[in-house]
Amino acid sequence: MTVRFGLLGAGRIGKVHAKAIGSNRGASLVAVADAAPAAARDLATAYEADVRTIDAIEQSTDIDAVVICTPTDTHADLIERFARRGKAIFCEKPIDLDVARVTQCLSVVKQASAKLMVGFNRRFDPHFSALRKAIDDGAIGNVEMISITSRDPGPPPHDYIGRSGGIFRDMTIHDFDMARFLLKEEPLFVSAHASVLVDKTIGELGDFDSASIILETASGRQCLISNSRRATYGYDQRIEVHGSEGMVAAENQRPVSIEIANKDGYTRPPLHDFFMTRYLDAYANEIAAFIEAVTSGKPVSPSGEDGLIALMIADAARESVKSRKTVRLAERAT
Amino acid sequence: MTVRFGLLGAGRIGKVHAKAIGSNRGASLVAVADAAPAAARDLATAYEADVRTIDAIEQSTDIDAVVICTPTDTHADLIERFARRGKAIFCEKPIDLDVARVTQCLSVVKQASAKLMVGFNRRFDPHFSALRKAIDDGAIGNVEMISITSRDPGPPPHDYIGRSGGIFRDMTIHDFDMARFLLKEEPLFVSAHASVLVDKTIGELGDFDSASIILETASGRQCLISNSRRATYGYDQRIEVHGSEGMVAAENQRPVSIEIANKDGYTRPPLHDFFMTRYLDAYANEIAAFIEAVTSGKPVSPSGEDGLIALMIADAARESVKSRKTVRLAERAT
Amino acid sequence: MTVRFGLLGAGRIGKVHAKAIGSNRGASLVAVADAAPAAARDLATAYEADVRTIDAIEQSTDIDAVVICTPTDTHADLIERFARRGKAIFCEKPIDLDVARVTQCLSVVKQASAKLMVGFNRRFDPHFSALRKAIDDGAIGNVEMISITSRDPGPPPHDYIGRSGGIFRDMTIHDFDMARFLLKEEPLFVSAHASVLVDKTIGELGDFDSASIILETASGRQCLISNSRRATYGYDQRIEVHGSEGMVAAENQRPVSIEIANKDGYTRPPLHDFFMTRYLDAYANEIAAFIEAVTSGKPVSPSGEDGLIALMIADAARESVKSRKTVRLAERAT
Amino acid sequence: MTVRFGLLGAGRIGKVHAKAIGSNRGASLVAVADAAPAAARDLATAYEADVRTIDAIEQSTDIDAVVICTPTDTHADLIERFARRGKAIFCEKPIDLDVARVTQCLSVVKQASAKLMVGFNRRFDPHFSALRKAIDDGAIGNVEMISITSRDPGPPPHDYIGRSGGIFRDMTIHDFDMARFLLKEEPLFVSAHASVLVDKTIGELGDFDSASIILETASGRQCLISNSRRATYGYDQRIEVHGSEGMVAAENQRPVSIEIANKDGYTRPPLHDFFMTRYLDAYANEIAAFIEAVTSGKPVSPSGEDGLIALMIADAARESVKSRKTVRLAERAT
Repeated sequence: MTVRFGLLGAGRIGKVHAKAIGSNRGASLVAVADAAPAAARDLATAYEADVRTIDAIEQSTDIDAVVICTPTDTHADLIERFARRGKAIFCEKPIDLDVARVTQCLSVVKQASAKLMVGFNRRFDPHFSALRKAIDDGAIGNVEMISITSRDPGPPPHDYIGRSGGIFRDMTIHDFDMARFLLKEEPLFVSAHASVLVDKTIGELGDFDSASIILETASGRQCLISNSRRATYGYDQRIEVHGSEGMVAAENQRPVSIEIANKDGYTRPPLHDFFMTRYLDAYANEIAAFIEAVTSGKPVSPSGEDGLIALMIADAARESVKSRKTVRLAERAT
Repeated sequence: MTVRFGLLGAGRIGKVHAKAIGSNRGASLVAVADAAPAAARDLATAYEADVRTIDAIEQSTDIDAVVICTPTDTHADLIERFARRGKAIFCEKPIDLDVARVTQCLSVVKQASAKLMVGFNRRFDPHFSALRKAIDDGAIGNVEMISITSRDPGPPPHDYIGRSGGIFRDMTIHDFDMARFLLKEEPLFVSAHASVLVDKTIGELGDFDSASIILETASGRQCLISNSRRATYGYDQRIEVHGSEGMVAAENQRPVSIEIANKDGYTRPPLHDFFMTRYLDAYANEIAAFIEAVTSGKPVSPSGEDGLIALMIADAARESVKSRKTVRLAERAT
Repeated sequence: MTVRFGLLGAGRIGKVHAKAIGSNRGASLVAVADAAPAAARDLATAYEADVRTIDAIEQSTDIDAVVICTPTDTHADLIERFARRGKAIFCEKPIDLDVARVTQCLSVVKQASAKLMVGFNRRFDPHFSALRKAIDDGAIGNVEMISITSRDPGPPPHDYIGRSGGIFRDMTIHDFDMARFLLKEEPLFVSAHASVLVDKTIGELGDFDSASIILETASGRQCLISNSRRATYGYDQRIEVHGSEGMVAAENQRPVSIEIANKDGYTRPPLHDFFMTRYLDAYANEIAAFIEAVTSGKPVSPSGEDGLIALMIADAARESVKSRKTVRLAERAT
Repeated sequence: MTVRFGLLGAGRIGKVHAKAIGSNRGASLVAVADAAPAAARDLATAYEADVRTIDAIEQSTDIDAVVICTPTDTHADLIERFARRGKAIFCEKPIDLDVARVTQCLSVVKQASAKLMVGFNRRFDPHFSALRKAIDDGAIGNVEMISITSRDPGPPPHDYIGRSGGIFRDMTIHDFDMARFLLKEEPLFVSAHASVLVDKTIGELGDFDSASIILETASGRQCLISNSRRATYGYDQRIEVHGSEGMVAAENQRPVSIEIANKDGYTRPPLHDFFMTRYLDAYANEIAAFIEAVTSGKPVSPSGEDGLIALMIADAARESVKSRKTVRLAERAT
């Protein structure tokens, strides 16, 4: 079976997914939609796909699944529309910036018995997958404490900051999902500190650029997250998991691994400077997992629910910063 | 000038300091006191020193300085006695487990214009010193965020736990001092989480064995600390300092740096498994710095004040765990 | 312009090149030939190409270039045939195991003014390219000494050994080419030692499985090569270049870069265990360079001449092992 | 039992040994001799020893052992004198630059049944010892191939070059000993290349500054050695041993292990820049092993014989460079 795809949104991340679909033998890209006709056309041409409107894709009987890469504020509506049409849905995170809206959307998905996968790409990074596998294999015993270092090479444009929902919902949300993926127990308490150290304008926009967060589960497991919108040496993405019998860590990835030694010391080049090159394999693996779930009829993971919980943690972190209190996450009846 | 030392306490850490004094050309060990006569005698013999009582050392005119390595609950009293006698004092941390008692003691030291140095040995580790020097040299611009990983190979004996003052005053206090040493700005807010994951008895004794702490300064600088009483792979002591123009990190130290590669992968031996071997150079440098301060008449560092502030942060961390709130440190009028 | 390819040989390495052609926007795979019809058909189907005989490809006017992946003893004949037809030729190393035959073949290529590129894929590895670039950029001053470590995970099948031409012409030939690529001066002297330490049958077949080689140029630059048919920890491919002002090194590549620490130490997984995964990017870059040379009309590199010189060094190494003498390479009038 | 030492030669290396003796509880430094009275006096004062002439030390009944750190051309004579007196002897390498003279000297030592240990300090480096131990423990199976990288930070003074006996007898001799220590089988064949790349004057003095050497044993084990008198990044001392079941490597040592990351990449400080700091522990362990052998009555290692064989390999390497042939080492009847 070949999964036939419609791609909604032909921007930066849309191109990444088009490439992943194009090079996957179990999938074909049938149609591309984008508000900018030229963008849609270029991408469609490259992959021998049609240009269609979102409405047309919704009606198309030759499309099994959609990948939603449109602006965030359209995600929930599109998910609902395509869920009702019985299409399998892969949606870039977040579903929405508002927990209530996400909850409503997920109930539509549930009623329609639709497949919805959320784009937490890092779970599919080969190194982080290997780390999770080491935990599953018992290599470190019981997980006790996690440290996640997640720093962007530089801040996004100011207009993006304005509509991003803030650092916790935009950036840390990936780390919250990773924490859940590795802790295998829900965080119950959140303490967060955040400040503006990199760019004053970010503060004027009501956001932060530097944050430290502690998550704690009911059984006392802890996860430390360190975020910054600045890392001069590249895209800093590291994870350490400490357990009762050992520790497993995933180091940073480098595009080139040479080292030059001279009188000033030993120097290795900077890290990847962009999330797309850093997570190139992750994006391909992510779409492959989605295709596999669609083909096999097995559940998708991470699910809409995973998207929702990560968002709730993000909101709790923001609340903790403001209230200067540890926030207890509401128990969820799923 | 040779600084003539009296050593109070001939236990484990007393021996370390005796060795540091013995191998320093600017110092001589004149007398050793210990409640256990055999311990005092053995150490005295090894360094060709006298065995004297604490009282006798207090009276001795041939002694310029004392090193206090007796049990914690005697520290403040001894500091006061020797301060009044005009001896220079090096005291192992902590001065006392009670902030009020420390404050009182420091006021005696101040009145006596005595020199009091507190044993935060890690400041003198060559790698951490180099890290601080890199900061001072401007290698990373303005300090923004620090991550300190500090894990013991295994928990101390239960009876030690009982009189230790708890993980924050016993273990994290070193990290609090290190944070201050590197931030160069006082922490103003503390959030802490702590739990019992390693050894239930530690919990029954009212203490924790696993802790995560965030410190934040007035200007928004942040420091993350990760503590555990368990690290199967050895004594885990790492620091990363992120700044506006770069990052500087100090890696773990290994007693032997070979690597074996075979079908199972590449394996390096574990880290040092004991703080004394890990910080061997630090202890020697620490005493050397004390001797230098005594000889030159310059101020000692870290001071009694540094000991007090680290203790106050420890108390705030404990309060944060209990109250589930971020604790604001009292402004101090020094 | 799109370069239209015929692929001769649909075996293991043929598939690698088919994939590289297939994913290159400047190329299309038009036809595949293989003595085994099923192999040709499978590969042709996957890339929507025709199955044709070699003769038919030779006659085809819709084919600009061929990639020769057939058995070694057919290479020289095929190069001559396609050179005379005016096709651009990419040929896997070696052109032939016999220097005289290679010389003859290259003279045909020259007369036909044909483009012939030889498959020394390692020049196109991103890490080794970066190393060469560092040298070109002057990062280490004048190149003085090179160390190449090149160890296979395990020996090839015995029947392959028999027709391989021996370790120097089969395995070290890549290192000889790399030495030339980095030295930028021709080796003039060769000393080699070789023995059978891994597999006695290899010795019975007249070959060696372990070799150490020194190359020296006219100006005294030296290159050390260490070869083994065994490396339990994976495909060991490292290069160090020492110069007057520094050193540049390319480390091994790992499929997964996690590390597990426990009471036995710190363990990273083994290296890649197969040349195709290790040099995946190199193969893609290699074909891209060939396509670029064909499209732009610029010279190909590495050339047939490069293939010949590496073969001559291999023969000299074998002679050195047998004669227990340093062998002086004949000066070549090109 | 305390071993009572006389130290012959109070220069740079003499001070190192004095310190090692001074800090060893099983030894005392009784007397120091040096042609320069001030040097002898300074060292004697620091360790509360006497200044005596070499003749006086030879006559002294309160001296059990001597450490010979005088110029090379005096070594053999002094060894013979003190051997006849029944003193245990530790002599810095080499015994003499001439094989015949060494052979003669060793026969005197043998007749006198004296203890003679030769100063191949690297055997006692904790990292290289651990590497040897890993081999002995069977961690890598049978040893097959060794790579030794040994580069000095910079060339020694020209007048030293002149009396050094040449790079092979002065510098590589340490690597030849290390090869023997790790191969546990005698080298039988030597091929060497050497050139002048660092400093023309070294060439004018008849010596080389850059050398590559292959050793091969009777069973085909191979050892590659890479030497240079220049390494801009510090004192480069690495060893890799490949065996049938794995590989063990000892990495370089660094005085400070911090790393700074910024837009230019990740930089670690240079290596040790001096053999004395690099091999500080090795020197202490070496003297401790000598003291242990003297005290226990067990044989010393490395022995005078070890010194002789390393010198013979050095001579063979020089011959190989000149003759452009692999040199077969003479079988020795010991």
